[in-house]
Amino acid sequence: MPRSALVVALLLTSLCPAARSAEPADEVATYQEAVDRILAASLRDGRAYEMLAELCDVAPRRLAGSPGAAAAVEWARHTMQQLELDDIRLQEVTVPHWVRSDVEVLRYAEPLERAGDAIPMLALGGSVATPPGGVTAEVVVVGGIDEIAALGETARGKIVLLNGRMDPGLVNPFSAYSQAVSQRSRGAVEAAKVGAVAALVRSMTNAMDDTPHTGATRYADGVPRIPTAAISTNAAAEIAALVASGRRVTVHFEQQCRTLPDTEGHNVIGELRGRSSPEEVLVVGGHLDAWDVGQGAHDDGGGCCQALEAVRLLKSLDLIPRRTIRVVLFANEENGLAGGKGYLEGHLDQMDRHVMALESDSGVYTPRGFRTNANPEAFAVLESISALLDSAGAGQLTQGGGGADIGPMRSHGVVQVGYQPDPQRYFDLHHTHEDTLDKVSPREINLGAGVMAALLYVVADLEQTLPRNPAP
Amino acid sequence: MPRSALVVALLLTSLCPAARSAEPADEVATYQEAVDRILAASLRDGRAYEMLAELCDVAPRRLAGSPGAAAAVEWARHTMQQLELDDIRLQEVTVPHWVRSDVEVLRYAEPLERAGDAIPMLALGGSVATPPGGVTAEVVVVGGIDEIAALGETARGKIVLLNGRMDPGLVNPFSAYSQAVSQRSRGAVEAAKVGAVAALVRSMTNAMDDTPHTGATRYADGVPRIPTAAISTNAAAEIAALVASGRRVTVHFEQQCRTLPDTEGHNVIGELRGRSSPEEVLVVGGHLDAWDVGQGAHDDGGGCCQALEAVRLLKSLDLIPRRTIRVVLFANEENGLAGGKGYLEGHLDQMDRHVMALESDSGVYTPRGFRTNANPEAFAVLESISALLDSAGAGQLTQGGGGADIGPMRSHGVVQVGYQPDPQRYFDLHHTHEDTLDKVSPREINLGAGVMAALLYVVADLEQTLPRNPAP
Repeated sequence: MPRSALVVALLLTSLCPAARSAEPADEVATYQEAVDRILAASLRDGRAYEMLAELCDVAPRRLAGSPGAAAAVEWARHTMQQLELDDIRLQEVTVPHWVRSDVEVLRYAEPLERAGDAIPMLALGGSVATPPGGVTAEVVVVGGIDEIAALGETARGKIVLLNGRMDPGLVNPFSAYSQAVSQRSRGAVEAAKVGAVAALVRSMTNAMDDTPHTGATRYADGVPRIPTAAISTNAAAEIAALVASGRRVTVHFEQQCRTLPDTEGHNVIGELRGRSSPEEVLVVGGHLDAWDVGQGAHDDGGGCCQALEAVRLLKSLDLIPRRTIRVVLFANEENGLAGGKGYLEGHLDQMDRHVMALESDSGVYTPRGFRTNANPEAFAVLESISALLDSAGAGQLTQGGGGADIGPMRSHGVVQVGYQPDPQRYFDLHHTHEDTLDKVSPREINLGAGVMAALLYVVADLEQTLPRNPAP
Repeated sequence: MPRSALVVALLLTSLCPAARSAEPADEVATYQEAVDRILAASLRDGRAYEMLAELCDVAPRRLAGSPGAAAAVEWARHTMQQLELDDIRLQEVTVPHWVRSDVEVLRYAEPLERAGDAIPMLALGGSVATPPGGVTAEVVVVGGIDEIAALGETARGKIVLLNGRMDPGLVNPFSAYSQAVSQRSRGAVEAAKVGAVAALVRSMTNAMDDTPHTGATRYADGVPRIPTAAISTNAAAEIAALVASGRRVTVHFEQQCRTLPDTEGHNVIGELRGRSSPEEVLVVGGHLDAWDVGQGAHDDGGGCCQALEAVRLLKSLDLIPRRTIRVVLFANEENGLAGGKGYLEGHLDQMDRHVMALESDSGVYTPRGFRTNANPEAFAVLESISALLDSAGAGQLTQGGGGADIGPMRSHGVVQVGYQPDPQRYFDLHHTHEDTLDKVSPREINLGAGVMAALLYVVADLEQTLPRNPAP
C-alpha cells in the first residue's frame, strides 16, 4: 500500500471511530503471537523448498497433456497424502495438447557474413509448424504490434520481427510485461493480416541476453495461422540494428511443433478442514503445469509448494482454523486456463461459501505482501492482518490483482488475493530454460509460505467471515 | 519502520501541529518529481552493474595490502575521473597485510572409513599458520563460544570445533549473524585458553552446503595464537553428528597463511560539489577492499559502485544540490577499518560540517530502504523522504545501524544511514568463493543506486540542513 493511502486509512480509523467498528482490527491484533510462531516455523522447519526440489526432479517439464503433467499430478496427490490433508481428490478437466518438436531452427541467411549463424529461439506455445523444410524470407522489423498494420504490402511474403520491449523504467516489471505482452500473444495474427509468412517476437524480459522466452500465442478465426517463435533480446536488438543500418536480413526458420487433440488434465485438491465452519472455504493455490523448458521452479512449481506448505505449517503448529483452507493445484494455466475455469464450474454450488481465494503465481522471491480486489470493508481487515506481517517485510497490501487461476471466481464475489514476492528478477527467467531450482532461495520460498499461512490462518479463523465482494 | 511506529508518528504529526513545524515535510513533498526521475533513470540508464562488472574483472580479490587492492584503487580513481567528479584524491592509510597460502588442507584422519576425505575449509583472515607439516589432533565439539570454558582440560592438545549456528528463525539474517559471529572473531582465543592447538569454526551462514565462509579473527595479548579456519556448514554438522554418536574424529590440519608488515592502502575520494553550500558535506560510500576469495561483488564492490552511480545519476540529470556529496571508497573494512578511522582523522576539522554519512555495505539485492541513528527531528525528515521512495518498494526506515566505515564519525554527531537491501540471500555467499557478479541483478543494484541518489539529493538540497545528532 502506498504510505499516503495508509495515512488516510489510519487517520480515518483513529479519528472517526464511527466509520467502522474497531472490533475486527482489535481481534486481528490478538493473532500477532500466532503469526510470529508461523513465521519462525517457516524459516526454522519450512519444507516448501524441499517439496519444490522433489517436484523439479520428478516433473521438470509439465505442460498440459504431457507425461510430465501427469507425473506432477501424481506427485501432488502423493504429497497431499503424506501431509494427511482431508478430502484429497483429482478433478478432471479437458486441456489442450501442444507439443514442441526437436526441430527448432532459426539461422541467418543474409547478410552473407552472418549466414548460418544460429539465432536463439523457442517456438511459442500454440504455434503451428513451418512448412516442412522451413521458410527463408527477409525480416521486416517493427517496434511493436501497433506498427504492423502500417507495413501494408511491404510485409507480404516476409517475416515480421516484433521488437517491442518492456519499459525498463517501470519499477514493477509485471506492469511492463502487461503493457508489452500483446506482441507475443497477438503478433502472429497481426502479421498474418499483412501477408507475413511468420512472426518472430522479441522475448518478454528486461534482461539483455541470449535466452529466448516462450509463452502462449493465439490465432484468430479467419486469419491465416502463421508460425511464430520468440527470439532472445540480444538477437532481436542485433537484427533490428542491422536492418536500421540498411542491411538486408534474411533468415531460415523451421519448427515442427504441433497441436494434438484435446486430452485430460487434473486439478489436484486437498484441504485442511475447518474446525467449526468447515463449509466456509478459503482456496489457496498455484498452477501445477509449466512450460516445457526449464523446470518451472518459479513459474509456478514454487507457488504450488507454498500452498501445500502453508497448510502443512498450520497443521504442524496445531493451528486449525474455524473455516476450511482448500489447496487447489490448477491444471493448464499456461495455455488455456482449463483448470481455473473447471474449478469454478465444478464448485458453482459452493461459490457463496467461498470466502477468499489466494494464489501464488508471481515467483517465489522474497516476500513483499499481497494484492487484492477486496471491497473496502474486507480490505480494512486484510490491511490489519498485513500489519502483523511487517516484521517479515511483507506488510504491503495493494489494490488489484489476484491470479489467473482464481480469476474465474471473481465474478462470484470471491475476494481475490495475489501473493506478491519481490518482482525484480522474475522476468529474467520467466518461461525459459533458466527457470530452475537453483534460482530459488530456500529462505525466500519458505518465508513466503509462512506469510501466506499467516494470512490464511487469520482470515480463516476470525469470528466474523470476511465480507464478500458485491457481485459485479 | 514498524507500522505501529508509523501510526504514532503520523498521528503526532497530524494531531499535534505544534510538535514540530510542518515545513520540512511540505518541502520534502515537492521533491517527488525529482525522485521519480532519478528512479526511472536508474532503471533505464543505470550503470552501477556495468561498473561492478569492470571492478570484478580488474580486481576480483582486493584484500588490504594485495595487488588487487592497489588495482581497485586505480580503477576507482580512473572511474571518478571518467565521471568528472570534483577534487578527486587518494588518502593514504596504514593497513595490515595478511596473505593466504596455497597450502590449506583439512582432512579426516579418523574415523578410518573417512580417512583422507577433504573437509571444505578456508583460513580465517588474520590467522597464524599451523606448524610446518600441520597438526593432527582429535576434534572436540562445542555448540558455541560460551561452552568452551567448560571443556577445561579435556580440550588440551585437541582441535575445538565451534559449531554454533545462526538462528534460522530470525527473519533478518543480519541479526542472527551479529548474535553468532563471536565464535569466528574470538573462537581461537577462547580455545587457546583451554589448551587447544587449533580452532575450527562452522561458517556464518544459514545455508547448509559445502562452501566455507572466511572472515576476520582476532587474537588477544597473553593468549597463545593458535591457527583457525572456517569449515562448511555441512562439514561441521557431519563432524558434530559423528562425535555425538560416540565416534572419535581426528583431523589433519595445515595452513601456511601469514601476516606481513603493515603496508599502505588508500581511501579513494571524489565529490559532487554543492552549488551553494559546498562546505557542508554528505558522505556516501562503501568499502573497496574485499576478502581474497570470490570477487567481492556483493561485499562490497556493489556498494562502492552504487555510491559512484548515485552521483553519476544526479550529474546526468543535472540535479546539483546545495550541499556537497562526497564519495568515499574506504580501504580495509574487512580486517582493520583503517580506512574508516583514517577518514575521520584526516577530516576532523570538517566534522562539524559533515551532515550525514550513508554507507551501502549489506549487499546489493532489491532495495528495502534505510536504517539510521538519526535524532528524532532528523528522523522525521528522513521519514518524509522515505515516503517518496515507497513507489520503489524502498520506503522502509528503521532505527539503528549505518555502516562500519562511517561508524567512526558517529561520535562526532554525524547522522549515520545504512542502505538496506533485502537481506535473505546475503549470507548464502558472504565471504566466499560464491560472491561473484552473476549473483547480482542489474535491476536490483541499479534501482538501489537510484534510491540512494534520491535520498542524498533531497537531504543535500533541502533549505534547512539536516539536524546533527547530539554529541554522545
